[in-house]
Amino acid sequence: MNFDRFIATKKLRELAKKAPDLTKDGALDAKRVEEMVVSGCQLRLLFSTERVNQEILHALEELAEESEACKKMAMIQNMEMVNYIEGYASENRAVGHTAMRGFFNEKKLSKKAREAAELEKIEIEKFRNFYKKVEGKYTDVAVVGIGGSYLGTQAVYNALSAYQKCKARLHFISNVDPDNMASALQEVDLKKTLVVVVSKSGGTLEIVSNEEVLRHYFESKGVNPKEHFVCVTGEKSPMDNPNLYAACFYLWDFVGGRYSVSSMVGVVPLGLTLGFDVVLEFLQGMHEMDQHVLETNPRKNIALMSALLDVWNRNFMNCPNLAIIPYAYGMSRFPAHLQQLIMESNGKHITQEGEYVNFGTSQTIFGEPGTDSQHSFFQCLHQGTDVVPIEFIGFRESQHDFDKESMGTSQRTKLNANLFAQAIALATGKKDENKNRDFKGNRQSRILLAKKLTPQILGQILSYYEHKTAFTGAIWHINSFDQEGVQLGKKLSLSILDLYKERAHKKGATPHPAQKEVQVAEAFIKHMENLEAPHIHLDYDVLKKHAQ
Amino acid sequence: MNFDRFIATKKLRELAKKAPDLTKDGALDAKRVEEMVVSGCQLRLLFSTERVNQEILHALEELAEESEACKKMAMIQNMEMVNYIEGYASENRAVGHTAMRGFFNEKKLSKKAREAAELEKIEIEKFRNFYKKVEGKYTDVAVVGIGGSYLGTQAVYNALSAYQKCKARLHFISNVDPDNMASALQEVDLKKTLVVVVSKSGGTLEIVSNEEVLRHYFESKGVNPKEHFVCVTGEKSPMDNPNLYAACFYLWDFVGGRYSVSSMVGVVPLGLTLGFDVVLEFLQGMHEMDQHVLETNPRKNIALMSALLDVWNRNFMNCPNLAIIPYAYGMSRFPAHLQQLIMESNGKHITQEGEYVNFGTSQTIFGEPGTDSQHSFFQCLHQGTDVVPIEFIGFRESQHDFDKESMGTSQRTKLNANLFAQAIALATGKKDENKNRDFKGNRQSRILLAKKLTPQILGQILSYYEHKTAFTGAIWHINSFDQEGVQLGKKLSLSILDLYKERAHKKGATPHPAQKEVQVAEAFIKHMENLEAPHIHLDYDVLKKHAQ
Repeated sequence: MNFDRFIATKKLRELAKKAPDLTKDGALDAKRVEEMVVSGCQLRLLFSTERVNQEILHALEELAEESEACKKMAMIQNMEMVNYIEGYASENRAVGHTAMRGFFNEKKLSKKAREAAELEKIEIEKFRNFYKKVEGKYTDVAVVGIGGSYLGTQAVYNALSAYQKCKARLHFISNVDPDNMASALQEVDLKKTLVVVVSKSGGTLEIVSNEEVLRHYFESKGVNPKEHFVCVTGEKSPMDNPNLYAACFYLWDFVGGRYSVSSMVGVVPLGLTLGFDVVLEFLQGMHEMDQHVLETNPRKNIALMSALLDVWNRNFMNCPNLAIIPYAYGMSRFPAHLQQLIMESNGKHITQEGEYVNFGTSQTIFGEPGTDSQHSFFQCLHQGTDVVPIEFIGFRESQHDFDKESMGTSQRTKLNANLFAQAIALATGKKDENKNRDFKGNRQSRILLAKKLTPQILGQILSYYEHKTAFTGAIWHINSFDQEGVQLGKKLSLSILDLYKERAHKKGATPHPAQKEVQVAEAFIKHMENLEAPHIHLDYDVLKKHAQ
Repeated sequence: MNFDRFIATKKLRELAKKAPDLTKDGALDAKRVEEMVVSGCQLRLLFSTERVNQEILHALEELAEESEACKKMAMIQNMEMVNYIEGYASENRAVGHTAMRGFFNEKKLSKKAREAAELEKIEIEKFRNFYKKVEGKYTDVAVVGIGGSYLGTQAVYNALSAYQKCKARLHFISNVDPDNMASALQEVDLKKTLVVVVSKSGGTLEIVSNEEVLRHYFESKGVNPKEHFVCVTGEKSPMDNPNLYAACFYLWDFVGGRYSVSSMVGVVPLGLTLGFDVVLEFLQGMHEMDQHVLETNPRKNIALMSALLDVWNRNFMNCPNLAIIPYAYGMSRFPAHLQQLIMESNGKHITQEGEYVNFGTSQTIFGEPGTDSQHSFFQCLHQGTDVVPIEFIGFRESQHDFDKESMGTSQRTKLNANLFAQAIALATGKKDENKNRDFKGNRQSRILLAKKLTPQILGQILSYYEHKTAFTGAIWHINSFDQEGVQLGKKLSLSILDLYKERAHKKGATPHPAQKEVQVAEAFIKHMENLEAPHIHLDYDVLKKHAQ
């Protein structure tokens, strides 16, 4: 059943024509704030600044019902087969990221999920023993991983570094760009560096290539890679080889890259740098939110309500983008992870029934922390020609015990006053005779609040986003767990690498690439080879002569 | 004259109905690559993967002509009054960022620009003397600045750190979030830290507040702020006070924040950390591009051609977004600066003639480095329901002398093969019986190429983007140099701060805020105050008991 054919969809389309205008007198007041709240674990979502009313919320509830979003959530957490496309060859498997933190409360899990949680517990214990053995031994940990094994871990590391219990710093060698590796290596002492190589299949181009180069580099410096490399990979993958690694930690095909932060992909590097306890608190927070989102009433399910509001803005208010703006310095890389999580999960063109969609799927996700972004692209959000819905994230307290007064208020108070001011200003706007100082307003946003960005709260927030992504995909009836769209470019890059090899080999002779795509690539390559070198001709005297 | 009323606009609207389909046999080949190139300084823009043909390019040239974009560029660089809105109170002034690097070739400048360049030369010499005095004295430099004084400087610092000649590290205290300051302070030794406070007006909330807190902090640790603080500010601003700073460097009201990297805003912190010579090379590159973009033939003007292609995609192909994807690890923060530069400049709702626009202005800009982004949001760019045009940036050589072979090709070769593969795959697509593996293609992009990311080339690239932004604004007849849209939120945040003060004062009593907006803020604040604390109840035993 294509999302577009639901009864609720038709109803919502009608309601969109008379969506509430937030700039109208009395449209936004304190009473409305109380009516538009949903809580989940220790998080609270305030959505009075969204363009919804009770009628629209009812219709959205019907949409949740009709699309069977909650049934799908239960299937996901029960590890039933949800990653498939009807009638076409596809991955055909369950997804099990919630089982990775399911061991806090195994009794509540399905049989399959419990089995997966048991497997993960073995890995956690393996890691805990390894952690005890190496604690204090390393000053630096370098992750060789890309996509989910990079962005998620980086987002969590930055967000929790205020609680760091170990002294080790975390680096990422993700990109095949040699400048990435070169600058990471500049900062570390190899003898005190542990490398964590992450690849589920053991075959990702970037990882295999970067690992090979790195091993040679360690050897060339007289440091034995075997003692300094551990891996996180699938059991029996080409990387699962105790002769090559000091330790191998496992993950399984039911844990997708962008959902893998709570598996050993995140646990190993984060545990080694933030500390094992910090990671465990984080996992607990994730598990708590997993339990919360099984609630089937959207008014009491924070992730489902947020998903419905996203669908409302995307498909009925026709907003193709969503900005995620944390008013929290530590969360500066969090939007980049969510960009991956949401766009890779829901940037799809067919439904699970194998039909082309005739509605918009994933928005373009972007964001930078406030207040920084207020001085950057917020001009465009206030007065640009497109309405960009925003999800703000705010906290009552700081992470560091450092919140100083100036001009009569604390830094934290200033930060939060700005957050609230933005949400309200975007909604209400302000008329002005001077058209350049006129604000049309009626631009929707919502605010996710928590007391403090602790490991546990971050876990709740990340799990909230994972589940909101899954709910959105469920409402749209798409498969949020595969990523066939990355294959074409990957294949073509291999053909172009063959062309490069051929050209290097023949030296001057013209190769005859079979594919027309490769012919185009060759034309590109020739341009690159003919680029002019920059030439420096600094005339210091010109400067000097005229200076006072 | 509103952009929408041009003759070329009508023509382009017709042409858009039959825009070339890049997936058609023979649509994209090596010959087309040669026909769709424009060079500027040492940069080259390949746009064969855009949805244009010669007829469309002609119409775009007519649009450039009709909108008098080149005349506007000359006016900008001649420092004529371009920052205004007809009929309304506005900033009413010239812009002079190109003069900040105009001293390389003063003879070519207008009288006003030459005067501005002369002023800047004095500052450069002042800085050079200061630099000589303090060279090697500081291990850390901390910028207190936000928006333009943060994002631009950070983007350049990251991009050029491979050429760093000084040992000093650069930090940013931009956000009013106390966790930003706290984590910066954790990393530095105050006695060896120089603070650069940047505020043109001397009155930005974040800056004044952060500086005040920081001064007290230095004093509390027995380090004299006067000896460790310098400022970059307007002459005679409240900050221009030799009793408070070891040195004051000037900028002028004709240099806008987002265009200020080449003024003392960037020169001081970048000079102190990268080295004076590196910054001078960077400025030279910017100046070279300034000269290039005065060319009036779009086929020979790289920034103008790129602006026209942006307008084509935005207004005629109806794509609201633009992704900027550098295949260069050092440029990881460059998209964040361009997001500010473009969205703050061109995210406007009125023309310079004071009419509301009836067409789309600034796109939403976002981006992360390739190949990382291929493993993140590229799924959505290939198979999502919205077409997102892309500007790729690529280099033939690496910055570091570190490019290792593995599996028969170097890392750099792999990187560039991926870049080219993405552009081609997005354009050509690929039919497949399996709808989930079907690629519709016809998704446009272009590739900006240079030999190597040197200081000079980075200067050319940044100047290219500054001018492309100005050209786009000129074509749309909007004012790319003010930012009235940030005012409303700023004002409201001050009212909310008053509310916070009142609440703290009355302790429990209900204040009666005058504004309805402030009443809403109070409802938000109450929610924040009532948030639950997280509670940790980790059961380690559960884990242990079940472990093998």
